[in-house]
Amino acid sequence: MAAGSSMQWLRSVKGVILDMCGVLYDSGEGGGQAIHGSAEAVRRLIGSGLTVRFCTNETQNTRERFVQKLCVMGFDISVSHVFSPAPALIHILRERHLRPHLLVHDDLIPEFDSVDVSSPNCVVIGDAADNFSYQNLNEAFRVLIGLEKPLLFSLGQGRYYKETDGLKLDVGVFMKALEYACDVQAQVVGKPSAEFFQTVLSDMKLQPHEVVMIGDDLLNDIGGAQRCGMKGLQVRTGKYSQSRNVEQLILRK
Amino acid sequence: MAAGSSMQWLRSVKGVILDMCGVLYDSGEGGGQAIHGSAEAVRRLIGSGLTVRFCTNETQNTRERFVQKLCVMGFDISVSHVFSPAPALIHILRERHLRPHLLVHDDLIPEFDSVDVSSPNCVVIGDAADNFSYQNLNEAFRVLIGLEKPLLFSLGQGRYYKETDGLKLDVGVFMKALEYACDVQAQVVGKPSAEFFQTVLSDMKLQPHEVVMIGDDLLNDIGGAQRCGMKGLQVRTGKYSQSRNVEQLILRK
Repeated sequence: MAAGSSMQWLRSVKGVILDMCGVLYDSGEGGGQAIHGSAEAVRRLIGSGLTVRFCTNETQNTRERFVQKLCVMGFDISVSHVFSPAPALIHILRERHLRPHLLVHDDLIPEFDSVDVSSPNCVVIGDAADNFSYQNLNEAFRVLIGLEKPLLFSLGQGRYYKETDGLKLDVGVFMKALEYACDVQAQVVGKPSAEFFQTVLSDMKLQPHEVVMIGDDLLNDIGGAQRCGMKGLQVRTGKYSQSRNVEQLILRK
Repeated sequence: MAAGSSMQWLRSVKGVILDMCGVLYDSGEGGGQAIHGSAEAVRRLIGSGLTVRFCTNETQNTRERFVQKLCVMGFDISVSHVFSPAPALIHILRERHLRPHLLVHDDLIPEFDSVDVSSPNCVVIGDAADNFSYQNLNEAFRVLIGLEKPLLFSLGQGRYYKETDGLKLDVGVFMKALEYACDVQAQVVGKPSAEFFQTVLSDMKLQPHEVVMIGDDLLNDIGGAQRCGMKGLQVRTGKYSQSRNVEQLILRK
């Protein structure tokens, strides 16, 4: 992009969507820690008059607890400005009268307090971490294979993420496992789904070309945003520092 | 097939390869139980002068212990006539100077007693059952992703199997999970790999058109055999009784 057109494009930007893990903070034991300078950067973005929203595939907490955690790290973020997969899914479940069998993290369970989970007619998986035991996977599989038309929702489709004690498998890996077991294709709720980004854009009351998505994941953040007509900017924190990962994601695009 | 050509074909048959689980016995707690009449059928096949071999993707036991279990059920089977994935893999590991990280069933570990597992340069997964914990999957994943060229061997690629207490996820499901996590394709050792069937045919000293494969799995037994030029016959025991599974497998072919 020439310097002139770059400046022109920047002037047309009216809103910013920020990925959270790897952009605002690094996850890990004790909830993780803020990336140096990120809280101040968020304050300046909002202060500049841009419409700012936050978009995360985090499913190890309810949205409320997740935002509380970020506030403790020094961020000034409103719950209503944070878009995460679980509330988006609950909207779908209600619209389609679906009763999920949940294979999710214990701390996400309260998000589903108002949802009927009796006689399940679909399966929902999130980043369940240690709950991804053989027994729990078998249980989810049996529900799926017992349905006339197996219906699987996955809260994101990430491959892995980095915690302070090493790389950990993400929900997408177990989505692929259950997809293969039952010969179904999961419906992904969260990034990089176009519907998910569209919900955020609607809330911002902006057109895609007026919005920049900033993230560390080429597939879920940058690729997903670009497919919706937004610009995508990749930060050099979070996953970026894993050169292997970045190379693979570029090849995958 | 017309009756005449059917008879002609039957006369040309010189050997039989038998799948074991679902054909000779049903697996389950306490090791499972023989399918009524199967031990007698095996005796009659061998007595008729046909060359008989056994071909299984069983990886929850060493081959020796597995055959002992079948002997207790009333079968008269020689260990050297049983072909299973682990011994075939060990041959490959030795030829290629590979040192595996093992994610397998505890009872399969003794099969690898003679194999160097220090500083692993590949990952091997079998039907590890309860050993498919989140922690163990993360560990296998970290070994794989840490290799310059991730190398994953899977002992079979089954989707699921039936035990007396219900359906259970098979190794193929976790193979798909790790394939997705690391963006690699696993090398499958065992049925339906053509190399695996070829080893059995070489041992029988017969040509593919002279051999019938009898199994309950359309993909691993019948499909695999047909791709090698053998005839495949599906029994109505084991997986066959799950009409859903059969329909799906037919669609997949």
